[in-house]
Amino acid sequence: MSIQKLKNQVIMRNEKFIETAEQLKPQLHETIVKPSSIVQIKAASEVIHGCKSEVIAPASSLTDSEYGKKDSVVLDFGDHQVGYLTIKIRPAGSPPDAPLKLKLTIGEMPVEMAEPFENYNGWLSSSWLQEETIFVDVLPAIISLPRRYSFRYVKFEVLDTSPKYKVVFESIECKSVTSANLIEVEKISHEDNELQRMDEISLKTLADCMQDVFEDGPKRDRRLWLGDLRLQALANYQTFGNNELVKRCLYLFAGVPDDNGRVPANVFVAPQLIADDTYLFDYSLFFVSTLHDYYFATSDVETLKELWPTAYCQVELALERLDENHILMDTPDWWSFIDWQEGLNKQAPSQAVLIYTIKQAIRLAEELKLPEKDCFEKQLEVIVEATRTHLWDQEQQFFISGSDHQVSWASQIWMVMAGVLTKEENTKLMNRLFAENPVVGIATPYMYHHLIEALIVSGEKEQAITEMKIYWGGMIKDGADTFWELYDPKNKDFSPYGSHLINSYCHAWSCTPTYLIRKYNL
Amino acid sequence: MSIQKLKNQVIMRNEKFIETAEQLKPQLHETIVKPSSIVQIKAASEVIHGCKSEVIAPASSLTDSEYGKKDSVVLDFGDHQVGYLTIKIRPAGSPPDAPLKLKLTIGEMPVEMAEPFENYNGWLSSSWLQEETIFVDVLPAIISLPRRYSFRYVKFEVLDTSPKYKVVFESIECKSVTSANLIEVEKISHEDNELQRMDEISLKTLADCMQDVFEDGPKRDRRLWLGDLRLQALANYQTFGNNELVKRCLYLFAGVPDDNGRVPANVFVAPQLIADDTYLFDYSLFFVSTLHDYYFATSDVETLKELWPTAYCQVELALERLDENHILMDTPDWWSFIDWQEGLNKQAPSQAVLIYTIKQAIRLAEELKLPEKDCFEKQLEVIVEATRTHLWDQEQQFFISGSDHQVSWASQIWMVMAGVLTKEENTKLMNRLFAENPVVGIATPYMYHHLIEALIVSGEKEQAITEMKIYWGGMIKDGADTFWELYDPKNKDFSPYGSHLINSYCHAWSCTPTYLIRKYNL
Repeated sequence: MSIQKLKNQVIMRNEKFIETAEQLKPQLHETIVKPSSIVQIKAASEVIHGCKSEVIAPASSLTDSEYGKKDSVVLDFGDHQVGYLTIKIRPAGSPPDAPLKLKLTIGEMPVEMAEPFENYNGWLSSSWLQEETIFVDVLPAIISLPRRYSFRYVKFEVLDTSPKYKVVFESIECKSVTSANLIEVEKISHEDNELQRMDEISLKTLADCMQDVFEDGPKRDRRLWLGDLRLQALANYQTFGNNELVKRCLYLFAGVPDDNGRVPANVFVAPQLIADDTYLFDYSLFFVSTLHDYYFATSDVETLKELWPTAYCQVELALERLDENHILMDTPDWWSFIDWQEGLNKQAPSQAVLIYTIKQAIRLAEELKLPEKDCFEKQLEVIVEATRTHLWDQEQQFFISGSDHQVSWASQIWMVMAGVLTKEENTKLMNRLFAENPVVGIATPYMYHHLIEALIVSGEKEQAITEMKIYWGGMIKDGADTFWELYDPKNKDFSPYGSHLINSYCHAWSCTPTYLIRKYNL
Repeated sequence: MSIQKLKNQVIMRNEKFIETAEQLKPQLHETIVKPSSIVQIKAASEVIHGCKSEVIAPASSLTDSEYGKKDSVVLDFGDHQVGYLTIKIRPAGSPPDAPLKLKLTIGEMPVEMAEPFENYNGWLSSSWLQEETIFVDVLPAIISLPRRYSFRYVKFEVLDTSPKYKVVFESIECKSVTSANLIEVEKISHEDNELQRMDEISLKTLADCMQDVFEDGPKRDRRLWLGDLRLQALANYQTFGNNELVKRCLYLFAGVPDDNGRVPANVFVAPQLIADDTYLFDYSLFFVSTLHDYYFATSDVETLKELWPTAYCQVELALERLDENHILMDTPDWWSFIDWQEGLNKQAPSQAVLIYTIKQAIRLAEELKLPEKDCFEKQLEVIVEATRTHLWDQEQQFFISGSDHQVSWASQIWMVMAGVLTKEENTKLMNRLFAENPVVGIATPYMYHHLIEALIVSGEKEQAITEMKIYWGGMIKDGADTFWELYDPKNKDFSPYGSHLINSYCHAWSCTPTYLIRKYNL
């Protein structure tokens, strides 16, 4: 895995946009949640990660026990939480004559309770693993931990007290936070229980990622990414309708373009708004897409007018990458995300993303009655024609990508999404894709989302449902309370980061079943 | 080592006394102290604990370096500090895309920087070892750690950042706190440099232990013990003159006697005043001693009147332990501190402490013109006579203790302090003690203090100075910034707790050279 680190990033801050975003900062809804059970984590070779939690007592019995040196307890909050822990501890025995040394291990999945974080040797920073070692000098104490955690389970390990006293955990609670209003969302009652459950878990996933921005994952990276935002916004229009939050996020991106006008792939919002030094070809274009979807969800023409120049600029910058054949140059120094899939060539799917977003830009220009519409339409025609000419392999009947003419799932899916072929051709292409099953497959729920939508737009609704049940339904069978950043039904330990401990088990780009079910009446 | 844990302790709270103590709570003086140097800790077999610190750069150069994963730095604050750390950190490189995981190891001695706390396996709680592992989610950050530390050195270890950024420590400072006013104390200029230095280090030791009570050690146990208080108060009268703090501490003890009126060996002051469930024969009697010394330092007759009943009660309770021969019963279930010395029998030294404190009680009763004076005088006569009869071994010319007739240093020293013999006999006894050197020796600076004072009161001032230079002078040569809880010049790794890491290197009961030097014009 490689990363971008820019030396000479120049950001042109648009303070007006930043101020608009700041004004839209949401109030978070807070709910106090108590743990439901005391559990033990047991080895179980038949389940994902090889371990599962088993209830051993109700959480209400926690106060019956005194915990001394080396004692531990795992609490289960019953569902996924994003929030702040408060622990009330009292001493038992003699007056505490030494501080309490207490370790907390906080995790979304049972495996995080089972495998010591010390052994983690993955590629991403170990600082994402949720743990704290705290010293309590004065007991009894009410400890409100200042950091926000994303979890279902919390392990408490008493590392030391003194021979003279133990401790009792009098109460433990989580102040769960979200900017989504779970009560106001319209519930569906699907006759298909699996789809019903998928919808519910999508809602929970999205809600837990909705904080003062749309975060990608509340455990990791807790950050606003454009690619994730696009999907979250789509799910949000069908459910919570918190359109102000989408607007805020659009203004955040528009607030920190670089000196060419390009929006970054993600932004940080603390200690203040900062553009990350990561730029992705597809993610920048998704600014257009997100603005497009926002406008058609809200009819907010003022925002469209104000942000159109930013959207326009992303297309213009993307067009600069076209070679003399109107095909994207596939040089080693460019970055397009598309999917985590190992070995995936990004040229053809990125070309498709360009077409997909130019079409959206044309719709927006049309709404604004701008002359750019005609210009984009002419360019689109040329690009689509070039794509059919240079990226379609007549013999294989697949789109190909890069100098090795790679046939990948991603290329076909995005070309279907982009509408490069006719609907009938798309249907055939999707059927061929499943029949021939090219080796360069799909790695993430993000790409799976596009597979499902490509099936739907090419008329294969039933297969779309079947695939959703295999994929998101698989996560549910494997114990998901919220949908995951990564899931490979055939290799359940998969992590691109070298350890399943660091994976995010509540991840925005995995929240789209509710969008797909509701939008397309699945 | 064994501990007291009482099941049925009943405390009779005297709210009036507790309120008086509360009113006397001192304002702490705060001083901002910056580190002086960046040091490295090197193995050095010739020095105590086998390691020493070596300056490698001024602390001002700290900002020249960026610290990434696994980098570390040790800062030297130049002298012992008791206070609160504030760290200002900024990121270097890309915007921080993962939390900073930072470990702090905080120590009074170089060895605490060198030996991993993980390996600690001593008898006292590992929670006393000063360390923190903190996660910083947002950078730059100013982190004010809420706990108070006692230290000279701080090691910063960056456990993780991310491949995209490092950190710079922009500023690190300590808000040092004490209720002693170091500026107002009268400086001495001793012609003997060693005594001069001993006086200075005593002052620093005492000051660092003077917080909102007289603590035994600011690193460990951070608590008000009666035995330590007595010595701190004596040093305080000669130096800082913070007599209100002594008064406060007396009222704290008098505020929480048990249902027999016995004052505990120590009290906790947070979250509120709590009597520990440890009672020590000698420490309870030192309430009399501390009140006696306070009265003669302040002439505060109101306090004497108010606290006399508490003092009186301690003597009465102690007298109940006398057997039909007027000698303290030496049963397995009683607790008297005297010294940590392994195998020390407490009977004879405790008998001496009883005599020593009855004499002080008589002086106080005399001041108050109370009839108890005569009563105590009669009892004293009988007890002293019994002591000479039953605890003096005519053949050995030593006091003996317990059923095994143990001859210990502690017994002789305390009998001299108690004035059981004439001054001439005392002088001979002290000389004989050094000449014959009984095996049951002295373990702590607390007992060394009494050795020195016994030498002085028996007229052996020169030898007192010689011994002070060997003992406290030895600590100075071994690098003491403040005087230590424990020191054995012949076994410098000595700890009664199983590890020198947990020893306190700034300990109240070791602060008395300034008292001895100033009071006795050494």
